[in-house]
Amino acid sequence: MLTRIDHIGIACHDLDVTVEFYRRTYGFTVFHEEINEEQGVREAMLKINETSDGGASYLQLLEPTREDSAVGKWLAKNGEGVHHIAFGTADVDGDSEAIRDKGVRVLYDEPRIGSMGSRITFLHPKDCHGVLTELVTAASRKADASDAH
Amino acid sequence: MLTRIDHIGIACHDLDVTVEFYRRTYGFTVFHEEINEEQGVREAMLKINETSDGGASYLQLLEPTREDSAVGKWLAKNGEGVHHIAFGTADVDGDSEAIRDKGVRVLYDEPRIGSMGSRITFLHPKDCHGVLTELVTAASRKADASDAH
Repeated sequence: MLTRIDHIGIACHDLDVTVEFYRRTYGFTVFHEEINEEQGVREAMLKINETSDGGASYLQLLEPTREDSAVGKWLAKNGEGVHHIAFGTADVDGDSEAIRDKGVRVLYDEPRIGSMGSRITFLHPKDCHGVLTELVTAASRKADASDAH
Repeated sequence: MLTRIDHIGIACHDLDVTVEFYRRTYGFTVFHEEINEEQGVREAMLKINETSDGGASYLQLLEPTREDSAVGKWLAKNGEGVHHIAFGTADVDGDSEAIRDKGVRVLYDEPRIGSMGSRITFLHPKDCHGVLTELVTAASRKADASDAH
């Protein structure tokens, strides 16, 4: 069951410049930063609020590390903007299987590793009214806390 | 101060079809539905979670009521997808003035009425790294509760 908006993924050309925009304009600060080589992105998570399911909602700023990554290609076509949205669940495996059974294309055979040690998968935007949709199961709280600093 | 992701605004061709997609695929249900004549949209709010500032996060599904509305023109150009993101604040007036003073274009001189009696304004996407960004102050809880059913 999807119990929160986990994050909004925003593609940008320059992560540092965009982080600085969000800091200067709104006061948002970086909760976590990492490079995901598999996805070909350098990313910053800005924590906006906590959520009623015990999780949190973030902005995820994404700079491609190579032009042929999914985000790199998307950015070349669309320019900067909202790349995807993500819902949080305690069970990304079960939920993605259930959603696949409803005829929505799930992009990975098995969930992969996402931000902060989470497990993630994506749903095909053409099956979701144009919205690239991610499902996320966060790593345990202990892992979250040790990753954060 | 912006204290939550208030909603993600998603433009669609047919509100009823898109509401049914979100219900069937994820189990999300309509919390509130209304027509905003000024914005030229028929919209449904799907409540996803409550937030640590006492508010909530929603998906806002938007169907244009006329082709020459902002959402209608956007949809003709881009197709279905994420139209804007919105942050919640207790003080949309003060925050939009402060953000204007930082050189970001605020699209309304004064906040206008948004979903569920909220007061809203928008920031120019070209000043926000490609993201059309809304600021929202929710109506009082009493008004929210009476609107919800």
